[in-house]
Amino acid sequence: MRAEVITIGDELLIGQVVDTNSAWIAERLNEIGIELYQITSVHDDAAHIKDALDEAFSRVNIVLTTGGLGPTKDDITKHVLCAYFDTHLIEDSHVRAHVYDLYKERPDVLNRLTATQWEVPACATILENRVGSAPLMVFHKGDQILVSMPGVPYEMKIGMEEQILPYILELKIKNEKLKIIHKTLQVTGVPESKLAIELEDFENAMPSDLHLAYLPKDGIIRLRLSSYGALSEQEMNRWFEKLKVLVSNYLIADTDEPLEVLVGKILTERHQTIATAESCTGGKLASLLNKHAGSSAFYWGSIISYDNSVKEHVLGVPAEMIKMHGVVSEEVVRCMAESVRKTLNTNYSIATSGIAGPSGGSETKPVGTVWIAWATPKGTYAECFHLGKLREQVTDRACQKALVGLLRILKEE
Amino acid sequence: MRAEVITIGDELLIGQVVDTNSAWIAERLNEIGIELYQITSVHDDAAHIKDALDEAFSRVNIVLTTGGLGPTKDDITKHVLCAYFDTHLIEDSHVRAHVYDLYKERPDVLNRLTATQWEVPACATILENRVGSAPLMVFHKGDQILVSMPGVPYEMKIGMEEQILPYILELKIKNEKLKIIHKTLQVTGVPESKLAIELEDFENAMPSDLHLAYLPKDGIIRLRLSSYGALSEQEMNRWFEKLKVLVSNYLIADTDEPLEVLVGKILTERHQTIATAESCTGGKLASLLNKHAGSSAFYWGSIISYDNSVKEHVLGVPAEMIKMHGVVSEEVVRCMAESVRKTLNTNYSIATSGIAGPSGGSETKPVGTVWIAWATPKGTYAECFHLGKLREQVTDRACQKALVGLLRILKEE
Repeated sequence: MRAEVITIGDELLIGQVVDTNSAWIAERLNEIGIELYQITSVHDDAAHIKDALDEAFSRVNIVLTTGGLGPTKDDITKHVLCAYFDTHLIEDSHVRAHVYDLYKERPDVLNRLTATQWEVPACATILENRVGSAPLMVFHKGDQILVSMPGVPYEMKIGMEEQILPYILELKIKNEKLKIIHKTLQVTGVPESKLAIELEDFENAMPSDLHLAYLPKDGIIRLRLSSYGALSEQEMNRWFEKLKVLVSNYLIADTDEPLEVLVGKILTERHQTIATAESCTGGKLASLLNKHAGSSAFYWGSIISYDNSVKEHVLGVPAEMIKMHGVVSEEVVRCMAESVRKTLNTNYSIATSGIAGPSGGSETKPVGTVWIAWATPKGTYAECFHLGKLREQVTDRACQKALVGLLRILKEE
Repeated sequence: MRAEVITIGDELLIGQVVDTNSAWIAERLNEIGIELYQITSVHDDAAHIKDALDEAFSRVNIVLTTGGLGPTKDDITKHVLCAYFDTHLIEDSHVRAHVYDLYKERPDVLNRLTATQWEVPACATILENRVGSAPLMVFHKGDQILVSMPGVPYEMKIGMEEQILPYILELKIKNEKLKIIHKTLQVTGVPESKLAIELEDFENAMPSDLHLAYLPKDGIIRLRLSSYGALSEQEMNRWFEKLKVLVSNYLIADTDEPLEVLVGKILTERHQTIATAESCTGGKLASLLNKHAGSSAFYWGSIISYDNSVKEHVLGVPAEMIKMHGVVSEEVVRCMAESVRKTLNTNYSIATSGIAGPSGGSETKPVGTVWIAWATPKGTYAECFHLGKLREQVTDRACQKALVGLLRILKEE
C-alpha cells in the first residue's frame, strides 16, 4: 500500500509557514509499513485541490490531506471534499457535543462560525479530534481512501496517533504484510565523498531492494539503509552490522536518535547530571538538552553569558583573562565550563564561546571560530572548531560538536 | 509568471528530514512578484522525478528543484536532468577550479567522487555555488526554465540570493510587471471564530483580488491580506489600515516580523538590555532573543534554572518560598525575574516557571500551567497561563506569551 500527503494552505506556498506535518506523517506511515510516495502542497483553491486529489488517486491507495478545516472563510477543504465525493453537509450531534465540551470554559468561542464545525459530509466516517473543533474525516472511493485532517500540527498528530493510524492499519492488515525497514548509523569526521568511496564495494554488493542514503547535516552524516519489503529483519541486521564495522572509525551512534537523546539516556541511567555555560550558542544547547520529556533527571541548568559582564560577574571569568586571550579562547571556555560545573554542582558541563557572525570576526578568529570545553570528573577538555560563515549554521553545528564530544567522553568513561 | 518547487530526496518521504527549503524559496519568489503554485516532494527515482517535471511544466513557467546533487550514489538528479533534456555531461573547468579552491585546506575531500561535481550537462547554464561543490544549473525548454539547486539549505539559499533570483528577475522583467503584495497583522487574545465574525463585513466588502487569511499559532493569530496583481500599493495600504482599526483591541504588531525581532528593535533603539531566568522554557526564550544578528546590543544573558537547586543557589529563591508556594507560583517567578535583572544588571528581565509535561501536573496545577513575570524599571508584573497539554506546545506558547507581554510593556513605557 502506498500513500500521498496533500497539504492545503496558501500560507505554505507564500512561505509563511513551513510544512512540518508531512515529515511527521511520513515517519508514522513508514512505521506501519506504508510507503509515502509523494508530498504535494496546494493553494486554498477548489480546482487546485481537486486536480491534486485526482493525480494522487491515480498513483496511490491512501491520500491524506491536512489543512483548510478552520471555521473562517479562507478554509474551504470540507466544501471541496463534499463536491469531490458528491455529498452534502449534515449536522453531527457527537461533534456538536464535543465542541461544546471543548469550549465549556470559553463561551466566547461558541458562535455561528464555530457551529459550522459540526456540519460534516454525509458520506464520510467521522473520527473525533480530541484537542480541536474540526473532526477528522475518512472518505471511501472504491478500494481507495481519503483522510482529511486539521493543519494545526498537534491536532493532526493526536488525531493520527489515536484515530487514523489504527484505522489505516486495520485496512492494511486485510491487504498485505509488507515490511518497510529503515536503519540509520550516525558518523562524523569524514567527508561524504571519502566515505562513499570507502563504501563502494559494500554498495555494489547490496541486493537491489536495499538502498543506502547519505544525509549530511551540521557536521554529522546519517547513513540510512532502507528496505521496502524484500528483506527480512535478520537479513537487514546482517547488512547493517557489516556497514557498522566498515564505518567504525567515524561512528557516533547506531540509531537515528538525536544526540541529545543518546546523551540523556546515558546520564539518566548513571544518575549523573549536566549543566551548560553558553555564549555563542545562546541557550540552544540548553534547549536541546531539555527538549525531551524526562530531561529533569539529568539536566540541571545553564548560565547564558552572552555579554562579557555575565562571564565576569556570574561565571567568574577574570577580566584580565578575557583581556589577554579574548572571549573566544581556550582559557575562557575552560574557565566557563569549570565554573558552571562547580556553581550548579553537576557531574559534567559544556561551555561554548565563538563568533556566530555576521560581524565580530577578525583575521585570526574569523566568523565561525568556536571554542568548546567539556568539564568532567576526570578533567577538562577543550577544542577549537571552524564551523562556517552563517550565523544559524555556526550555532547549530556548535551544538552538535558539543554533543558529539560529550557522547565520546561518556562512552569512554 | 508562476513557479513550482520540486524537492527531491527519499529522506523527505520517510520523514527523516523536514523540507524547510520550499517555504524559504516561496517567500523569495513572492518578493519578486512570482507566485509559487505548488510544492512537490518526490523520491530519488528517475521515473518519479520525470513525471513530476512533466506535470509541473504543464502548469507553470519556472520549475525549481532542490536536492540529489551530492557526489554519492543515491544522488541522481543530474543524470535524470541530462536524460530529460537529452544532453550529456561535459567537464567544466570553472567548477573544477572552484572545487579545488573550496577544498584547498582539506585535500582528503578531493577524490574521484568529488571530481564528478565538475561534470555538468552540456546544454545547461552553469552558475557558481560559492559555498559548496555542486553547481547551480539552469535549463531552458522553450519559454520555460528549470533551475536545479543543491538541497543543503545554506547552499541553496546563497545560490538563490546571489545567482538564481537575479537571473529569474531579468527574465520576468522582459515578460510582465505584476506585483504580489502580502501585508500581515498580528493579534492575540481573541478566538479565531469570534474575530472572523467581527471581520465579516470587511471581508464581504473586499475586492475579488484581495484575500484575507487567518494563521493561528502559539496563541497568536497572523492576519494576512494578499493581492496577486490587481491592487496598487496605495489601495492595499488603504485596506490594510481599515483592517488595523477593526482589530485594534487585539493588535500586537502590524508586520509579519517575529516578536523577538520587534522587541529587539525597540530595546536596541533605546539602548536598553534584557535577561531571562527560565525554568520550563529551558533556554528557548534566550535562543529566540539572541537568534538574530545584532542581538548582543540588547540581550545580556540568562540563568536557566531547570533544577530547584539552581533556583535557590544561583537565583537566590528562598527554599521556604518554594516549599510554601511551589516552584510554579507567582511568588517564585517574581523572585526569579527580579533576581536575574539585578544579577545581570539589565533594564528588563523575563522569568518563566511552569509544568511542560508530560508528567509533573496536579489537580490544582495541571500540565500547561505556566507563570511568567516581567521585571522592569517601574515594577514587576506576573501572569498565569494555561497553555495546553503537549510539552513542545506549552514551551513554544510560553515564549510567545513572554514576548507579547514584554512588547506591551515596552510600548506603554
